Amino acid sequence: MASRFKGSKEKATAEELPAPAADPSLLDRRAFLTGAVKVAGLVAAGNLSGNLLATAHAAESTSPETPLWMRTPGRPFRGYGQPARYEEDVRRSIVQPYKDIAPGAGESMTPLHQLQGTITPNGLHYERHHSGVPDIDPARHELLIHGLVKRPLKFSMEALLRYPTVSRICFLECSGNSFFNAAPEPPQKSCGAIHGLISNSEWTGIPLALLLDEAGLKPKAKWIVAEAGDAAAMNRSIPMEKALDDAMIALYQNGERLRPEQGYPMRLLLPGWEGNMSIKWLRRLTVAEAPVYSREETAKYTDLMPDGKARQFTFPMGVKSVITHPAAGMTMKGKGFYEISGLAWSGSGRIARVEVSTDGGRSWTEAALQVPVLPLALTRFRLPWNWDGSDLLLQSRAIDEKGNIQPTREKWVGQYSAGNTYHYNAIQTWSISPEGEIRNVYR
Amino acid sequence: MASRFKGSKEKATAEELPAPAADPSLLDRRAFLTGAVKVAGLVAAGNLSGNLLATAHAAESTSPETPLWMRTPGRPFRGYGQPARYEEDVRRSIVQPYKDIAPGAGESMTPLHQLQGTITPNGLHYERHHSGVPDIDPARHELLIHGLVKRPLKFSMEALLRYPTVSRICFLECSGNSFFNAAPEPPQKSCGAIHGLISNSEWTGIPLALLLDEAGLKPKAKWIVAEAGDAAAMNRSIPMEKALDDAMIALYQNGERLRPEQGYPMRLLLPGWEGNMSIKWLRRLTVAEAPVYSREETAKYTDLMPDGKARQFTFPMGVKSVITHPAAGMTMKGKGFYEISGLAWSGSGRIARVEVSTDGGRSWTEAALQVPVLPLALTRFRLPWNWDGSDLLLQSRAIDEKGNIQPTREKWVGQYSAGNTYHYNAIQTWSISPEGEIRNVYR
Repeated sequence: MASRFKGSKEKATAEELPAPAADPSLLDRRAFLTGAVKVAGLVAAGNLSGNLLATAHAAESTSPETPLWMRTPGRPFRGYGQPARYEEDVRRSIVQPYKDIAPGAGESMTPLHQLQGTITPNGLHYERHHSGVPDIDPARHELLIHGLVKRPLKFSMEALLRYPTVSRICFLECSGNSFFNAAPEPPQKSCGAIHGLISNSEWTGIPLALLLDEAGLKPKAKWIVAEAGDAAAMNRSIPMEKALDDAMIALYQNGERLRPEQGYPMRLLLPGWEGNMSIKWLRRLTVAEAPVYSREETAKYTDLMPDGKARQFTFPMGVKSVITHPAAGMTMKGKGFYEISGLAWSGSGRIARVEVSTDGGRSWTEAALQVPVLPLALTRFRLPWNWDGSDLLLQSRAIDEKGNIQPTREKWVGQYSAGNTYHYNAIQTWSISPEGEIRNVYR
Repeated sequence: MASRFKGSKEKATAEELPAPAADPSLLDRRAFLTGAVKVAGLVAAGNLSGNLLATAHAAESTSPETPLWMRTPGRPFRGYGQPARYEEDVRRSIVQPYKDIAPGAGESMTPLHQLQGTITPNGLHYERHHSGVPDIDPARHELLIHGLVKRPLKFSMEALLRYPTVSRICFLECSGNSFFNAAPEPPQKSCGAIHGLISNSEWTGIPLALLLDEAGLKPKAKWIVAEAGDAAAMNRSIPMEKALDDAMIALYQNGERLRPEQGYPMRLLLPGWEGNMSIKWLRRLTVAEAPVYSREETAKYTDLMPDGKARQFTFPMGVKSVITHPAAGMTMKGKGFYEISGLAWSGSGRIARVEVSTDGGRSWTEAALQVPVLPLALTRFRLPWNWDGSDLLLQSRAIDEKGNIQPTREKWVGQYSAGNTYHYNAIQTWSISPEGEIRNVYR
């Protein structure tokens, strides 16, 4: 049974890890590994009843009063649906540092603490724009492939929509995600407002390798410079190895055509790599011998190292996890049962294991992973927990199939110069007070 | 390589099938089994170039003119995104047979021919309502579990949101899906307007078995009657075996809380079974010794057999597939390369194999399956094809891991009395004329 939950058969190299020690507040994990897959057997029930029954009410009457909404017909059909009006607070949080002079520069963040499962609904996918969202007419948009190719080619949308397609579920994460936590003092924001520059979708599009092959690569073709069709003309250099591996010209997102803020009518998609490289509103691919060393790979998107130098081209995103429930943005509702749940991911492959600590990292317990565990995709982890109402520190730690381990904040900070805000993947610590307040703290 | 595409290791019992014969218009499948997974190698390119280059244009200039949308900043951020304005025709098609007297009775259908991948975006999930969409305040909604239980219980939303959760990607299909094709003459509608009473989501909720265990089942508890909180008070009887297996009280759909038309704030979810049994706006579960024989399991949702009797309780949906591209609702744009693509599913498990015919069923070629192939979930199949411009008949046929084979229309019709419209799962035939017109025909 446990293997159905784990999904991945490979084990992480865990030599650096202390042996997991069962925290008595973490319920017997086997109960849920059995119970959640097929039948909630008596073992699971036995563990739960005492904790959960307090949240349900004994039914005083078994003939409930007919509610208002059963006494009148509901509203008719809609061509395109919207969320319930009671969920209007489930919104992306918007950060615009230069709002007055550049209203289209900034980001909006996925409210991770209000969501469940692994798919991000399209309306809540995070955004990062340098000059707002262009309104591109697909009938007038073309993709140009030129440079070190035998046949420079232009593709209309109509032409591209005839090409063979592939689909994959994968995450996109801004390389600046969680940058607030690089500050000296921990920001008191919701989980999504700290870590929400990550989202997960089923993307469908054309393998880039196929289009490059149509154009025909010349022998010296080693890099591709991808350019956006927005006012910022965002551009990045992509090594040919990635372009020929799993790069995609994405046309669909969770079944429907891309949303404008995700690059409509087309974007580059580089699974597992820095989000800014998956160029949106893609208009041009210039095949070249060397990178272009654009503004976005010199002044920005480089990592400041302790020796004062900057590291260029950190492409894959690190192994990372965050507990989304309980998490900042919510308040504990008294002691008793809670499901600890969160998201884990790695730019190097599948998540192999996620561990949870309720004592600030002294002991760790392995969480169950939602199946299927897909490479370069968000993975949901879950662990039943009985809160005794005491003061404590809640943490999660992810390990990927390559053996990469999510670092402590102290270790992460030591890798860089002060001021670096990219590739923050340290363990998140939530402190819970006896009053039920959840705060962001550094450990 | 092929195994990565197939996903499932089990083979269908295919004794009834004729041996697949390669249709010369179907390109060498190995090219894409290799090309789409990792690198579009030279084999794939060699096959494609001649067919596809006609759709791209040689670039006359490699310095394209700066388009309008690069000369001005784009619009700023939004808390909740919407599709591009150029995609306003991607809408559910609405069928309301008694619109004047019952505007909330009918269905809206997912535009399958306009979508890609396998996930249905929440705004386009199909709807089937008997009395419209109720506007339920979650703070005032409760779930009652009573009847043959030791402890009748009421659950508020706040209580339920503390329970352990599970997630799974699975389809929901109305048992009346494709009913238009049961008519004597084939309807000329789009693919989605014929077959769109099916959608696929990642659902997250509480295992029903866990809540039943909290209430405590009495020895004679064999069925559960689930009742909706809408004005129609839709109800259905569920065998206890399913309730204790994979039934879920679903709270989230593709990451966010359920949409109103999908049962907000909660619905029952019975993976693989008739959609109408996954009771929306769930308010009551009555544990009983026998089914309730409600209107929805006597007058409706029963299958009319050739001997004049009606078959009750056909729970799982049959094995089925439909080509969504090319399909009715689009017009062929001249001869040359097309990707044949569609969806397959079965209420009995995973899809093992999908075959495509371009000659009305004389020869069949196996399509590639998008991975991961999940049980009780939509599976995307794809096959490269070179249309020579001639008149032909396009079909797909699905086989599931239990060896069930999608029937011809003739075989399906022979199983029932005229007038039966439930559980239609026959092979769909699209005719393509030399002018590029795509029509629904019976074979």
